[in-house]
Amino acid sequence: MTDADLVDRVQHRLAGLFDDARADADRIGAPVREATDSLADFVLLGGKRVRPLFADAGRAVAHGVAGAAPLPDDSDDDIVTLGAALELVQACALVHDDIIDASDTRRGNPTVHRVFAARHRAGDWQGDPDRFGESVAILVGDLALAWADDLATGLPARIAPAWRTMRTEVLAGQLLDIGSEARRDESLDAALRVIVYKTAGYTVARPLQLGAVLGGADDRLVGDLRAIGLDLGLAFQLRDDLLGVYGDPAVTGKPSGDDLVTGKRTVLVAEGFDRADGHGAARLRGLLGTDLTDEDLADARAILTDSGAQRAVESRIDAALASALHGIDALPTSDGARAQLAALAHRITHRAS
Amino acid sequence: MTDADLVDRVQHRLAGLFDDARADADRIGAPVREATDSLADFVLLGGKRVRPLFADAGRAVAHGVAGAAPLPDDSDDDIVTLGAALELVQACALVHDDIIDASDTRRGNPTVHRVFAARHRAGDWQGDPDRFGESVAILVGDLALAWADDLATGLPARIAPAWRTMRTEVLAGQLLDIGSEARRDESLDAALRVIVYKTAGYTVARPLQLGAVLGGADDRLVGDLRAIGLDLGLAFQLRDDLLGVYGDPAVTGKPSGDDLVTGKRTVLVAEGFDRADGHGAARLRGLLGTDLTDEDLADARAILTDSGAQRAVESRIDAALASALHGIDALPTSDGARAQLAALAHRITHRAS
Repeated sequence: MTDADLVDRVQHRLAGLFDDARADADRIGAPVREATDSLADFVLLGGKRVRPLFADAGRAVAHGVAGAAPLPDDSDDDIVTLGAALELVQACALVHDDIIDASDTRRGNPTVHRVFAARHRAGDWQGDPDRFGESVAILVGDLALAWADDLATGLPARIAPAWRTMRTEVLAGQLLDIGSEARRDESLDAALRVIVYKTAGYTVARPLQLGAVLGGADDRLVGDLRAIGLDLGLAFQLRDDLLGVYGDPAVTGKPSGDDLVTGKRTVLVAEGFDRADGHGAARLRGLLGTDLTDEDLADARAILTDSGAQRAVESRIDAALASALHGIDALPTSDGARAQLAALAHRITHRAS
Repeated sequence: MTDADLVDRVQHRLAGLFDDARADADRIGAPVREATDSLADFVLLGGKRVRPLFADAGRAVAHGVAGAAPLPDDSDDDIVTLGAALELVQACALVHDDIIDASDTRRGNPTVHRVFAARHRAGDWQGDPDRFGESVAILVGDLALAWADDLATGLPARIAPAWRTMRTEVLAGQLLDIGSEARRDESLDAALRVIVYKTAGYTVARPLQLGAVLGGADDRLVGDLRAIGLDLGLAFQLRDDLLGVYGDPAVTGKPSGDDLVTGKRTVLVAEGFDRADGHGAARLRGLLGTDLTDEDLADARAILTDSGAQRAVESRIDAALASALHGIDALPTSDGARAQLAALAHRITHRAS
């Protein structure tokens, strides 16, 4: 299965799930159908499918070990199901995160809570439109999480421990994130800790592990992949931090400088506080979490660039990628599996969206 | 296992889960520990354990069928696990529902989102306290849902279809509820429809079914129990509606006339609109969803009582209970199992909290 095949098959699996869900929803009532449609659009029209690709790479590594048992006939089905389940967990995380961050756009479209708030306004419905939008979005995210687990239940029982940890970790990472922000913890340590749980484990290390366990990996191999995954997850998130400040909105689907507007405490910003002079750091702090003008944004970018914070983050990405590639080289697997994982490693660390 | 034993064992199972979760949370960070503690308090300190009791009754019915296979040794463990899992789904539903309804209290204590908003205020943390409270509560609910599924994964695979339907139904019921309210649908039909999905299936019919499937029931018996469960679920919710208007706050743990203050579109209120004269209906509509004074509350109660709405709801409860008891009498099971289910039926329809 090529990467494109996998992405197609995950898409197809998700589309089938939503066809069934729509039929169920129609039996219950219009509000359920509308919520289901909204989730279907969210899941089917966007997303890079990074987690399914890492799961497949993990399976390939396990399968490529000399003397590994041949993959059963339904191994492709399992990895597709796992990929679809991971995308649904991600949908829950993003839909709820967008409520928490009060985000207006996601993947270039209005966020789920904004869509339903707008529908409430347009229909001149009863109550507060924003509250209605958030309420529907809470339930849409819940549906995504429940349906993710429905898919995962069909997978071999040996993946259960990693699946369990993955879900708890991503929620824990979000709690850590909002908890650190509320407590004004601007330290690099706090930002890195959030990454480990909210992104590195959940986006890379756990999908790799889940795929490897599906492929029959032993504990030693799973441990090796975990270290690689944490490096790559860190690199992935740091690239995200850079894109959140320097990214092209036409490519990222998010507003320009979005992370600064929302006041996100990223590693990039923490490096900025550490490295800028007192005046620059104070100016940066004053701009964070405000509706920045073009001039403000240019200012913030200049502080982060001139202080060396941007360069420091690029260096961290390079170091994490190098460490991961070193680990990949040493994996006791086939050349093909190593190449598959290394290609993915390069791709996620050098992306524009 | 007596009812009291079951409740104790479910409590113990949940306590064990939270001990493990606290240990994991401590490794991640304080905000995760605080969220875990809050969920543990919510789950362990409250709740009538209605769903576990119905699950156990369903198992007893299946087991009491002449010629039924003997229950395996771990059957008690399974019903305890199922009961704990149901309580966690319920925790998710309530914590998220309380955000949606902007409720201040639940089970006699401040709601989860209010607890964290208060903590934010007390600590003079950064950002908006109410938004922080709601954000944490969204994630606390998500954790409850994820952990419910973690428990359910350990159960025999034959329960998966009913488990899946139950989770989708309760979320669909909530969507229907807020959707009907936003669209100003005050009809009896809408209120009854919400009950079927949000309460009757989820609180009684599905737990009964899940227990019965665990106990080895065939499709015919599951169908009989489903009809009984929907009757009892309706009666349960209608009693809740009456308690929401006439209940004693010291017993219900909710403010006096809470459903009127929150403007909930219940069957009781729909009956009130149908049965009161034009003046009474207009007065009731004007009071709904406002901070009622004691005099207002007395007024609203008088309209509902004098119009015959309260009596109509009591009649509906009696009819649903009679229908369920008739169904229970006809179940092809042991006298003991029939008695267990009938006792539970009486208990939930004649409760004060």
